[in-house]
Amino acid sequence: MSESRSPLAENAVELTRALIRCASVTPEEGGALSLLEGVLGADGFDVERLTFSAPDTPDVENLYARYGSARPCLVFAGHTDVVPVGDEAAWTHDPFGAVTDNGLLYGRGAVDMKGGVGAFAAAVLDYIRANPDFPGSIAFLITGDEEGPAVNGSVKLLQWAKEQGEEFDHCILGEPTNPRALGDMIKVGRRGSLTGRLTVHGVQGHVAYPHRARNPIPALMRYLDALLATPLDAGNERFDASNLEVISVDVGNRTTNVIPAEAHAVFNIRFNDIWTLETLQAEVRRRLASAQEGLPEATVRFDPSNSVSFLTGPGPFVDLMCDAIQAETGRRPELSTSGGTSDARFIKDYCPVIEFGLVGDTMHQVDERTPVADLEALARIYRRMIEAYFSSMSSAG
Amino acid sequence: MSESRSPLAENAVELTRALIRCASVTPEEGGALSLLEGVLGADGFDVERLTFSAPDTPDVENLYARYGSARPCLVFAGHTDVVPVGDEAAWTHDPFGAVTDNGLLYGRGAVDMKGGVGAFAAAVLDYIRANPDFPGSIAFLITGDEEGPAVNGSVKLLQWAKEQGEEFDHCILGEPTNPRALGDMIKVGRRGSLTGRLTVHGVQGHVAYPHRARNPIPALMRYLDALLATPLDAGNERFDASNLEVISVDVGNRTTNVIPAEAHAVFNIRFNDIWTLETLQAEVRRRLASAQEGLPEATVRFDPSNSVSFLTGPGPFVDLMCDAIQAETGRRPELSTSGGTSDARFIKDYCPVIEFGLVGDTMHQVDERTPVADLEALARIYRRMIEAYFSSMSSAG
Ligand SMILES: [Zn+2]
Ligand SMILES: [Zn+2]
Repeated sequence: MSESRSPLAENAVELTRALIRCASVTPEEGGALSLLEGVLGADGFDVERLTFSAPDTPDVENLYARYGSARPCLVFAGHTDVVPVGDEAAWTHDPFGAVTDNGLLYGRGAVDMKGGVGAFAAAVLDYIRANPDFPGSIAFLITGDEEGPAVNGSVKLLQWAKEQGEEFDHCILGEPTNPRALGDMIKVGRRGSLTGRLTVHGVQGHVAYPHRARNPIPALMRYLDALLATPLDAGNERFDASNLEVISVDVGNRTTNVIPAEAHAVFNIRFNDIWTLETLQAEVRRRLASAQEGLPEATVRFDPSNSVSFLTGPGPFVDLMCDAIQAETGRRPELSTSGGTSDARFIKDYCPVIEFGLVGDTMHQVDERTPVADLEALARIYRRMIEAYFSSMSSAG
Repeated sequence: MSESRSPLAENAVELTRALIRCASVTPEEGGALSLLEGVLGADGFDVERLTFSAPDTPDVENLYARYGSARPCLVFAGHTDVVPVGDEAAWTHDPFGAVTDNGLLYGRGAVDMKGGVGAFAAAVLDYIRANPDFPGSIAFLITGDEEGPAVNGSVKLLQWAKEQGEEFDHCILGEPTNPRALGDMIKVGRRGSLTGRLTVHGVQGHVAYPHRARNPIPALMRYLDALLATPLDAGNERFDASNLEVISVDVGNRTTNVIPAEAHAVFNIRFNDIWTLETLQAEVRRRLASAQEGLPEATVRFDPSNSVSFLTGPGPFVDLMCDAIQAETGRRPELSTSGGTSDARFIKDYCPVIEFGLVGDTMHQVDERTPVADLEALARIYRRMIEAYFSSMSSAG
């Protein structure tokens, strides 16, 4: 390597290693937020620790930190909780050991997303040490409930911040966004998610006397056919096509001689900006109604959802991020809206948000790991982005 | 009523009442078989009590009795076990109290089938008292495992009797066969029953990346469509059409963001004599194969079944039964093969079997009950049948 190891790169790796050593499997804090509190507080951040509660879910700790109060305020968002290690015996290295082997840093959370948090924290600290009086402010929204129910995390943290009068201009969420190599992809939006539960009531009876019963299962199949019959849309230049998947069908009849009284199905729709929650639910009901002739009625119930699609449109903020990535990697990232949901679905109600982080191919797997070089490069990308943001956005805004 | 109460009628009612007072909910003997043992033994029957066992099912008691050893041997078959009382508070009278109210005898098992057992036992005793040296023999096959798993009941009792060298010529099973009024219907056959379990393996994955997964649910629906697409047959002069019911579909996916790996369905076929177990299973496999193009493979597993259809054809035995019914009720019964299975599916491998008993409309329900007059008439029908059988069959055979 021609490049000598800078304090920035060193800090990013050391912070990430220290975070990995915190066994912060959701909902455990594991010391990860205390670590960040110490590091950020020492450099002049105001840090708040917030524990949120809700019935039937564990209490979860979160962290909010801010340096400065001027606008614009650039927010770095992320989570320090991790998914369970899975088959621990299958790991090459201790999942909480943060072992570096052959240039790769191993550990649960290495890419999702303690590496992202370590890289942006190091970049921010490096920037404010060099520019203590920069024209703006920087905030951290760090949750411990991203991999869990996500009830006591970002939703409540954002709401709390708003109630404190905190205002944000732009947000970078450090989730792993690159399919194969650092610089592949920024996420500038996500499709929404809607879960529906379908029930068909029939009339129970003995299989030997089907004319006295009304089997709900064939009716349920006709309703599901109607939901699946034609694609919801073909997608557009911004989003993949919306997609409906039937993810469970359940009757639970343990006998072999009884026609059941009820049949249930669950479906999940990932939908783009052609739909709102309202128009999508109406379309589901329209399709069910179109199949109803001659069938027992189907009832549909939708799970509560605040996950509509969102898109952070083209413009200076996205351009700055692409420029920073290109300067470091030599490549211009794809602007993507693919994949699952993230906490960006909550943040988008407060300010424009984009996502960029490490390469995600080992996330949630045994031997989750990142090249150390990626971690260092990511810290430099964030560092460039911060510099450019406060140079251009503050003069422009 | 012009008819005075005969000892036969009195015995039938008293035996039935005594049997109802035995709380013989499967697998409990409840004293019912001991009662029969005493009554039959006192009149010269050789009585055997047999307890059968099998893994994962309770031990069950059964009874075999025979009077005489000459051929022909006429068998009366039945069960003394009953289904649970259900909502006991909803009963008008104690379900094990055998209360007579306004000409109706109330109790669990009144029609299914302690009434049948009481009536045929009274008829047999009346006959052999009058004809102690009749030309033939009479046997009783009484099980305590008809309403339960039916593993430690008639199947093993018949096998045991065969091993003892017992041979039977004809059998009358006293199940309730009349839909509305005594004399409506004899069952001269039953459709068979076959249960199949269908599994489709897909590829699990995240709902946001359906192209990386393979959802087994739509495939399972296509396979079920293929099974249901056309009727198996239209029935014939002997049997109703065969019928396939999908009785359960189960995936059990508790998440809302994962496409499941497997989907399961259970179906039950009631089939007539157009099919054997072999041809029917082949037809199921043929229908599944016809749907397979482009789908993940479906595997089907059939539950063990010895329940093929059977038919006791027209002839002297059926005619004698119809004559006896007509002589008592003034009506000629319908010869039917409708409805569910019974222990006749086991007996038919040993000798021709027909079923005739009380009116079944209250069986398995709260306030199960029979008119006392029906019970008395049924005993007289059985008595006529026994008399006619040994007059005509022994001279003919
Ligand atoms: Zn994550
Ligand atoms: Zn019965």
